[in-house]
Formats: sequence, C-alpha cells, structure tokens
Amino acid sequence: MVSFSLRHLSDLVNGEWSGEPDIKIEGIAPLDRANDKKITFLFDPRYIKYLADTKAAAVVINKEHAASCPVNFIVVSDPYVAYAIISKSFDNTPISARNVHPSAVIDDSVKLGENVSIGPNTSVYSGVTIGDNVVIGANCVIRENVTLGDSCCLHDSISIYHSCVLGNNVSVHSGVVIGADGFGIAKSEGRWLKISQLGSVTIHDDVEIGANTTIDRGAIDDTVIHQGVKLDNQIQIGHNVSIGSNTAIAGCTGIAGSAKIGKDCLIGGRVGISGHNTITDNVTLIAFAGVRGSIKKPGVYSGGIGCMEHKKWNKIEARIKRLDSYIKKLKKLEQKIQVEEENDTNDAD
Amino acid sequence: MVSFSLRHLSDLVNGEWSGEPDIKIEGIAPLDRANDKKITFLFDPRYIKYLADTKAAAVVINKEHAASCPVNFIVVSDPYVAYAIISKSFDNTPISARNVHPSAVIDDSVKLGENVSIGPNTSVYSGVTIGDNVVIGANCVIRENVTLGDSCCLHDSISIYHSCVLGNNVSVHSGVVIGADGFGIAKSEGRWLKISQLGSVTIHDDVEIGANTTIDRGAIDDTVIHQGVKLDNQIQIGHNVSIGSNTAIAGCTGIAGSAKIGKDCLIGGRVGISGHNTITDNVTLIAFAGVRGSIKKPGVYSGGIGCMEHKKWNKIEARIKRLDSYIKKLKKLEQKIQVEEENDTNDAD
Amino acid sequence: MVSFSLRHLSDLVNGEWSGEPDIKIEGIAPLDRANDKKITFLFDPRYIKYLADTKAAAVVINKEHAASCPVNFIVVSDPYVAYAIISKSFDNTPISARNVHPSAVIDDSVKLGENVSIGPNTSVYSGVTIGDNVVIGANCVIRENVTLGDSCCLHDSISIYHSCVLGNNVSVHSGVVIGADGFGIAKSEGRWLKISQLGSVTIHDDVEIGANTTIDRGAIDDTVIHQGVKLDNQIQIGHNVSIGSNTAIAGCTGIAGSAKIGKDCLIGGRVGISGHNTITDNVTLIAFAGVRGSIKKPGVYSGGIGCMEHKKWNKIEARIKRLDSYIKKLKKLEQKIQVEEENDTNDAD
Repeated sequence: MVSFSLRHLSDLVNGEWSGEPDIKIEGIAPLDRANDKKITFLFDPRYIKYLADTKAAAVVINKEHAASCPVNFIVVSDPYVAYAIISKSFDNTPISARNVHPSAVIDDSVKLGENVSIGPNTSVYSGVTIGDNVVIGANCVIRENVTLGDSCCLHDSISIYHSCVLGNNVSVHSGVVIGADGFGIAKSEGRWLKISQLGSVTIHDDVEIGANTTIDRGAIDDTVIHQGVKLDNQIQIGHNVSIGSNTAIAGCTGIAGSAKIGKDCLIGGRVGISGHNTITDNVTLIAFAGVRGSIKKPGVYSGGIGCMEHKKWNKIEARIKRLDSYIKKLKKLEQKIQVEEENDTNDAD
Repeated sequence: MVSFSLRHLSDLVNGEWSGEPDIKIEGIAPLDRANDKKITFLFDPRYIKYLADTKAAAVVINKEHAASCPVNFIVVSDPYVAYAIISKSFDNTPISARNVHPSAVIDDSVKLGENVSIGPNTSVYSGVTIGDNVVIGANCVIRENVTLGDSCCLHDSISIYHSCVLGNNVSVHSGVVIGADGFGIAKSEGRWLKISQLGSVTIHDDVEIGANTTIDRGAIDDTVIHQGVKLDNQIQIGHNVSIGSNTAIAGCTGIAGSAKIGKDCLIGGRVGISGHNTITDNVTLIAFAGVRGSIKKPGVYSGGIGCMEHKKWNKIEARIKRLDSYIKKLKKLEQKIQVEEENDTNDAD
Repeated sequence: MVSFSLRHLSDLVNGEWSGEPDIKIEGIAPLDRANDKKITFLFDPRYIKYLADTKAAAVVINKEHAASCPVNFIVVSDPYVAYAIISKSFDNTPISARNVHPSAVIDDSVKLGENVSIGPNTSVYSGVTIGDNVVIGANCVIRENVTLGDSCCLHDSISIYHSCVLGNNVSVHSGVVIGADGFGIAKSEGRWLKISQLGSVTIHDDVEIGANTTIDRGAIDDTVIHQGVKLDNQIQIGHNVSIGSNTAIAGCTGIAGSAKIGKDCLIGGRVGISGHNTITDNVTLIAFAGVRGSIKKPGVYSGGIGCMEHKKWNKIEARIKRLDSYIKKLKKLEQKIQVEEENDTNDAD
C-alpha cells in the first residue's frame, strides 16, 4: 500500500504542517469518517461541525480553522486545491502497458510517437499522427488523418472521425464520439437533403471529455474546444460551436450548432443553449437553465422552476397557463381604481 | 415456433383459467389486434372498450372484468405482473454460445466462473473475477480488478473501468460506461486541476442498466446502486451518488454528484437532480422535473410547464418574466383598497 | 485538391451562372471570409451585410439579391438547398476499402450483398442479411437476424440488437444503440419483474441517426422510424414509439414509450415527450419544450422559460410558487370592487 509522510504531502501543496511530520498517511477520507491512517480536507462549510471530533491522521485546512483542529494539520490557502494535488498521489489507477497490443489494427502510415500505448482491438487508420506518451485504450477507432498531441489519454470504446485534431494532454473517457457529422439538412420538395459536414473538430491542450459525450464536426469551419475546457458526461456539442478556454460544463448539457461560449464560464448540468447564441466570458449558468438568446454581460443566470408537490404544482401550472388573462384583469382593476380615485378627487374639488 | 397451452400459462401465473385448457398459444398481442393464436392482457383501462370484440385466444384479466370476457381467460389479481411473467416464456432472444470467443483478449489472471460466455473482441484485464453463468457480449472492455457476480448479462460495447463491483444478476445494455471519472475539478490560478477519483462503483444484485447510461466512480467513497434498481437509457449518474433499492428511473434523467436517492422511488424521464440533495424513500418525480433541494416527505412531485401554442406561450413567458412587478402592483392595489375601506369605515363612524 | 468550374456547380443545382464560367472553385467558405478560390451561399439574412465586400469566387444567391452581388454568382430559387447539393461535391471523407477486414468476425450464415465493406473487429452474427454497397465501420456489433438494406452506412462502435431491420440508405453514426430492451417493468411484492421486450426496431429508407442515439426495441410490436426521418445526437427513443416520415429531431430529445410522432414534424433540441402521447403531422416543437399531452393541431408549440439573471429569477420563481394565492387575492379584489361598484350603483338609485 502506498503511503506518504505528512511532511511530504505538506511540501507537495506548499503548506505549513503542524504535528508529527513523519506520520504515515495511506489515503483520503471524509472528515467525519477518516481514521488515523487517512488525511482529510476541510473546504466545505457544512463539514466544520465534524472538525472537533475528527479521528483523521491530519486535516488540510485554512488558517482560520486551523486553531480549532484537534489533530495534525497542514495549513494552506485553498484546501480544495490541495485536495486536487494530494488526490493524485493516492490515485492507483492501473498503468497501461507501454506497447501496441498485437490485436490492434494500425495502418502502416501511422506516425507513432515515443512511449505510446495502444490497447486491444483498437483501430488506427491511415495518416494518423500520435504524439509521445499517448495512451489509447481498447476498442477505440481513430479514423484517417487524426492528430493526437503528446500525453493524450483515450480510455476505451472511443470513436474519433477523420481529420480531427487533439492537442497535448487531452483526456477522453469511454464512449465519447468526436467528429460525427453535424446536424445539417435542407428540405427540398418535401424531403431532406444532407449538408455534407466539411469542417472538423479542433480540441486544444488540457481538455478533458466525459463519458459518452459527443462533439460534432463543423459544417465548413471546425468546431473548437479551447485550452483547459472540462466537459462532464453525456454533453452534446453541435457543429461549429466554440467553447472558450477553461470553461467547465456539467453533465447532460446540450449546446446547439454555432453557439459561441466564452472563457471561464461555469455551465451547470442539463443546461440547454440554443443555436447561434453567444455567451460572453465569465458567465455562470445554473443547472437546468435554457438559454434562448445571447448573454452579453458576465454574471450568474438561471431559469427553470424547482419541483414541488405535484398537486400543488398542477394548480400553479394551470394558473401560469392563464397568466395572460389574469394580468389583463389586474391591469383593468388598476385602471378602474385609478379612475375612481380621479373621480373622488374631482368630487372633492 | 414455441407454443404453450392455456393451462400451462395459467399455472405459471397462479391464475384460474376458464375455457379450453389445451388451446395452443403462440405469442402475445394487444387486445384489439390479437388473433386466435395470441394471448393478451387487460391492465390498461383505456383498453376495456376492446374487450367485447377481442379475437384473442385468451385474455389475462382480473376478476372484475372476467365476467364480460367473450373468449378464454385467465383470472389473476394483477394482469400486468402476469404479463411480465408470461412475456418471458415468449422471449426468443438468441442464446449466446457458452464459450470464450477466440478473439477475446483475456488476461491470464482472470478468474472465470462456470459456464461463462465472452463474445468476440472483448477485453478482460488482469485481476478480474467473473462469476458463474455470466454472459458478456462483443467489444466490451472490462478493466483491471473488476468483479462480476453470478448470472450477470453484459450486452455489447460496454466499458467498465477498474475495480468496479457488480453483484449477481446485473444486466447491462450496450454502450454503458461504468466507473469513468467523476467530474471533480478545482481552480488554481485560473486553471483547472483534476481531482483524482479514488472511489469506485458498487452495483448490487438484480440491477438493470439501459443503453448508453453512464455511472461515474466516486471521488473518495464509491458510487452505489442498490439492489433491484432499474435504470433506463441515457441516464447520467454522478460520483458518489447513492440510489436506494428498487428505485426505477426513466430515460435521460441526470443525477448530479453526491445526491442520495431513497428506495422505492419512481423517477420519470428527463428529470434533473442537483448535487448533494437527498430524496427520501417512496418519492415519485414526474417527468421533466428539476430538483434543486432535498425532498424529505414521500409523495408525488413535479415541476416544469407542459408546452402550448408558441405564440400564446411567448406572451405568457413575457408575463412571467415581469411577474415580480405585477405582484407588487397587486399588493399595492390591495393596500389601497384596504385603506379606502378603512377610510369608508371611519367615515361611517 | 478537388476543384470544379462555376459552370459545373451551376449545372449541378440547375442554376443560372453569371460571370466567368471556367473559374476554378476549390471549396466552400462563409460569405465574410471566402477568398477567390471559394464559393459561398447567401441564405441567412444576417449575412446580407457582407455581400457588398465579399471576396468570394462566386456566390450562390436568389434572384432578389443577385443584382447587388459584386462577384460571380449562381442564381437559384433556394440557396440553402444548393448549399446541400454543392457541399457533397467537396466532401473529402475518406472512402472505406470495399472488403471485409480479416479481423472482422462474420458468421458463416451471413448473407453479404455486393461491394460490402466491413471494418476491423466488427462482429456480424448468424442470420444477418446485408444489402449491396453497405459500409460498416470498425468495432460494430450486428446481432442475430438483423437486416440491413442496400447502401446503408454504419460508422464505428455501433450496436444493433437481434432481429432489427434497417431499410436502404440508412446512415448510423458512432455509438448508436438500436434495439436494446425497452424499459418495461412490473412491480410484484415490492420487487421489479422485467417485461421481456418481444418486438424489434424497424427503420425505413433514408433515415440518418446521430452519434450515441438510442432506439429501443418494442415490447410487443416494433418501434418504427419511417422514411426520411433525421435524428441528431443523443436522442432517446422509447419502445413502441413511431416517428412519421421526414420528421427531423434535434439533439438530446427524449421520446418516451408508445408516443406517436407524425410526419414532417420539426422537433427542437432537448425536447421531452411523455409516453403514449400522439403528435399530429406538421408540428414544430421549439427547443426545451416538455410535451405532457397529445397535440392534435399542426402548428408551433413551445414551453420552458429562457434563463435570466439568477437573482431576478430567484424572486420570480418564488412568486411563481405562490402564484395560486396571488391569483386568489386578485379574484377577491375583483369581487370586492365589483361589490363596491354595485353598492355605488345602488346608492345612486
């Protein structure tokens, strides 16, 4: 079992340790359930109440709360960031063999970098370029002329269509489809004609893509995912969408064709963004929001009504559906009262 | 062609048959379209009107309606449950060969149970344990140290990440991804750091998982799906979610990280549940509901407004967006009238 | 590099060219960024402003705007349809080898048409029939007794369950699952029993299915997708759904079991349609709509509230949740005023 000293972990996060520097830490646990082999992190205010009774080996904590910590601790400015860094030390995901599995089907023209791993039953087509230290899992399909930068990690059962370009350090989870045709059709004499999707997908460095997410190729230009974008599972990104750097998007969100999302946005789960809209930088969209127009001002936006008891909601929904007539009544009442008031005033004259 | 006598099917569901016990039944059809080789089931009140004219070989029916049945019948207390049982008799899904296909890539360390079927081009990595009577289809990827209990059925193109545990009799449809990384990121100096997802996924006995559904591994603890849970297609389950036993969830529903769902819940299609919320046992969520807080009382909940004519809805949406000012007007009017009334009363004094 | 003369492209779309018929055109670009090797199309009114300054080799344009075009042009009645036709000429998607890859696992009983292409590590099970000119990519799984008509194109990592039938010219993108079990369960003594899904999926000619879309098999009858239907990515289609010919559905839409969708419908992204509802022909559903009942009249329908600033929305949501009591107040006020008026009138008598 892997273990690290308190001092080692403290150095890793540029923290200041307090207590026994040589105590061995074997893993991570929540504050309320950590034992004396586990390190824990206090970043969620809901957990402060567990601090006094924690049995953890050590707590990573900010200055403010360190004073009340009953066990070893490491003071850092941001315990959540420290959690990210230390979690990596305890990651025991098995390492893939650094070879090409004999069952993989690799075209002779493929350019393989150094130290590449390709799993069983993966196919890599002609003209593909793969950078150094790339890991590709089992049952992936990398179509013609795709480029993968250095240190990319593709899990299993991933499909990348021809000519897509992934930068360095792009991580792709299982079931992802990159570069399928955008949804472009034109109606002619009652039938749909397909619009050939001539663009591709460009994904910049440090992007992570969650399981079963789909990113369509562009109609003319490319669909572009900029550096540091983080996509959760089952996200749908339409053709010619652009997503600005370091924007993070939670699961089940759908972004329709040609929408432009700014950088440093936070987009919640199950958000829908209609086509051709522009979202500026630094916009936060709360889960379940539906975006029907462009958003030009940074800020927090939402929509959608949280659920309530069905019977009560039924009544309210019925009210909403007659809202127009209610407001008209309200306005009539307002007018009437104003008229009466004026009459009263006139009478008083 | 498979066929069963009325008596046989009646015995299967502990029913009481009436009519010709030896009549041969070759399949199932709806009440209004069944011919004299087909059995049918009356459980949906909308179909009662077809009973009088049915041409079916037999009807599975409750006591109340049996009297008006013009053909053979089987009386049971719950015809829908009888439908489930009898449908299995007519299931002609081809049986997989009970062997390991030569193209499958099975690590030497894998522990295979008795009577296991593994399809072509499936990869099973080191340390995996597979129970008896397990069927795994084609092109699946079972990563390191996964455990599959007895009688699991994995269809095709399924990806299971390392160390996930499936109990007995778990059924997984094609395109499912189990154990991909949860969506955990921390921002440091304007860039996202990944939080390693150290937990796994535990799926208990008798769970069924629909096509292209994704279940993420936990950040520290496991994501847990309890016994008898039934998941439809394209459901997204975030890290550290727990779903209580016998809860059923319809397609396209998304459950964000660390949400806890109780047992015996019924969750409709396209429901969204925000992270860290707790839903108690026996909660029904109507399709399209958005859950933004915890639900502590069993019952039926909903949200979301059914669609209507676009022009009309446009007006109503505009009204909703000004609702705050309308309600303020309403309150002002109320006050004004009250004041007037008080004045009137005072006048009358 | 492929190139075409203006005259050639004009003939292709039955247009009338104006300018230099022999000019060589090498690709397509947007009006504002096209250079003198590119053809462009004016169909979006938002782009009219770029016409005067375009540097394109030629513009495909309607009669009305042709007069103000500063470069070569082709006059057509519908430039968007012309775009679809001409885009195909510039499609450089690599052509698959017309053979069966040696790593594909094809059962001896499979009937292969002429000129069929099957990619690496694809499995085709017993009893399958494949028409002429069919292309199947890598890592697909075609289960027992499936029928594929002529000229079907299956991309990669597709899973088709047993006995499904695809017509001619059906195009299926990667990650699609066709024919998984519909979500049918019946509760008996607190536990779910599975209802075997005995139907299949029938897909008619000229259907296109986007990446990671799922179409479930029917419970008794088939799920049916009629001719010319176009489905975008990540759509979920429940068991026994029927979709009428030439209906187009955008991404992330979910259609629950037994819903019947008419022909020539346009269904936006992330629409939800509850089970057993009927949507008539020629219905347009705007993105994000939730359909809870049948729609019997052609027209445009919508629902759902576009997002707004979170703080403002929070207030409005709170108002909505109390809407019932507000409306009651409004009605009381109305009554009171009416009573007062009547009293006034009485007084005046």
